[in-house]
Amino acid sequence: MSGAEAVMRRDFAARERHAPDEAQVAALTGLAARVRELTEAVVHTDVDPAEADAVAAEIAALTARLTAARREHPPVAALGADGRLRHLANPVSGELNPIAPPVLLEIVPDGGGVRAEFTLSDVYEGPPSFVHGGVSALILDQLLGAAAAVNGTPGMTATLELRYRRPTPHGVPLTAEAKVSRVDGRKTYVDAAITGPDGKATVQATAMFVMPQG
Amino acid sequence: MSGAEAVMRRDFAARERHAPDEAQVAALTGLAARVRELTEAVVHTDVDPAEADAVAAEIAALTARLTAARREHPPVAALGADGRLRHLANPVSGELNPIAPPVLLEIVPDGGGVRAEFTLSDVYEGPPSFVHGGVSALILDQLLGAAAAVNGTPGMTATLELRYRRPTPHGVPLTAEAKVSRVDGRKTYVDAAITGPDGKATVQATAMFVMPQG
Repeated sequence: MSGAEAVMRRDFAARERHAPDEAQVAALTGLAARVRELTEAVVHTDVDPAEADAVAAEIAALTARLTAARREHPPVAALGADGRLRHLANPVSGELNPIAPPVLLEIVPDGGGVRAEFTLSDVYEGPPSFVHGGVSALILDQLLGAAAAVNGTPGMTATLELRYRRPTPHGVPLTAEAKVSRVDGRKTYVDAAITGPDGKATVQATAMFVMPQG
Repeated sequence: MSGAEAVMRRDFAARERHAPDEAQVAALTGLAARVRELTEAVVHTDVDPAEADAVAAEIAALTARLTAARREHPPVAALGADGRLRHLANPVSGELNPIAPPVLLEIVPDGGGVRAEFTLSDVYEGPPSFVHGGVSALILDQLLGAAAAVNGTPGMTATLELRYRRPTPHGVPLTAEAKVSRVDGRKTYVDAAITGPDGKATVQATAMFVMPQG
């Protein structure tokens, strides 16, 4: 086990002992959703400077209220029957993280990998009217890693290759899918794509994951 | 010019006519910074469900205040002497976007490309204690594109290849750099890397950008 791997395991174990209960997860999910809406409002607001300053001061007061009881690390939760831990504040799929769209993954039965349907707002915009190319990379990395994990061959990302076929539009339903193509010893190869409403792939990706030793 | 390219140009031109003035940019920059702190507090909070619900309700009220005056699109601003437009709410480098760390780019003199120094909080966490691999990709994509633009050969990302050498730690100062390696007709090749506090590259990247026609 590498040093980094040891740090991760120790750190996750400590968080598990202080996992939030269902009622707290539900409340924090709602709280994060409200901050997601606030973020979208900030990116679009045209209020005058005095009103922006006034709202900013009220936000600082709310931050202080939330900080009155603070976890050392973002929360994790045990998941269903297999007991796998889930990072509730993951920046792509974490419902407790306001920066996550969130992209909620489903497992495709019979070894079909993982998939997600989602719509991105212009908070994630790069070129005008289109999703930032790096945001597509962020989402695909999450799906690729999840597909490797669901396959029973989880690992750290070693390489990630993205091919941008056409711009990815925001504000419309998108689909992303990822599936393991090959396992070679400790290496797992996974393919993924984001598809637009017209059924055409906008970004295709291939990643190679290396399973930790021991 | 492709259809997508035409959409982007038209859309940016419309936004330029309604660019925020300096005082509004300053106020919105402060507002976004407060929402960034709020996001960090949400990811760490351990308040009970009743308090989380109460704060969520106050946030919804602030969102309504900001939405009272709303822009159709995220704002852009004209930049310095060259008149280039800057996306103020870019999800990586936009000070007006609460989800952006933000990663502020500097131009390295004498054709040295672009660089940035920044620290990522655990809002951007993937594996425990480390930055999400897709967040590294998101940041590198932004730097790679900026290096191509600064070189006078801007374009849309065609391919992006990432090599993960070791985990990228959060909570410590990181450096990212990108520089054009080669221009071949309409294709621009750029190399980039994120470096940790020990001076070792954690993620290396190469991208190819294609300049729009006409």
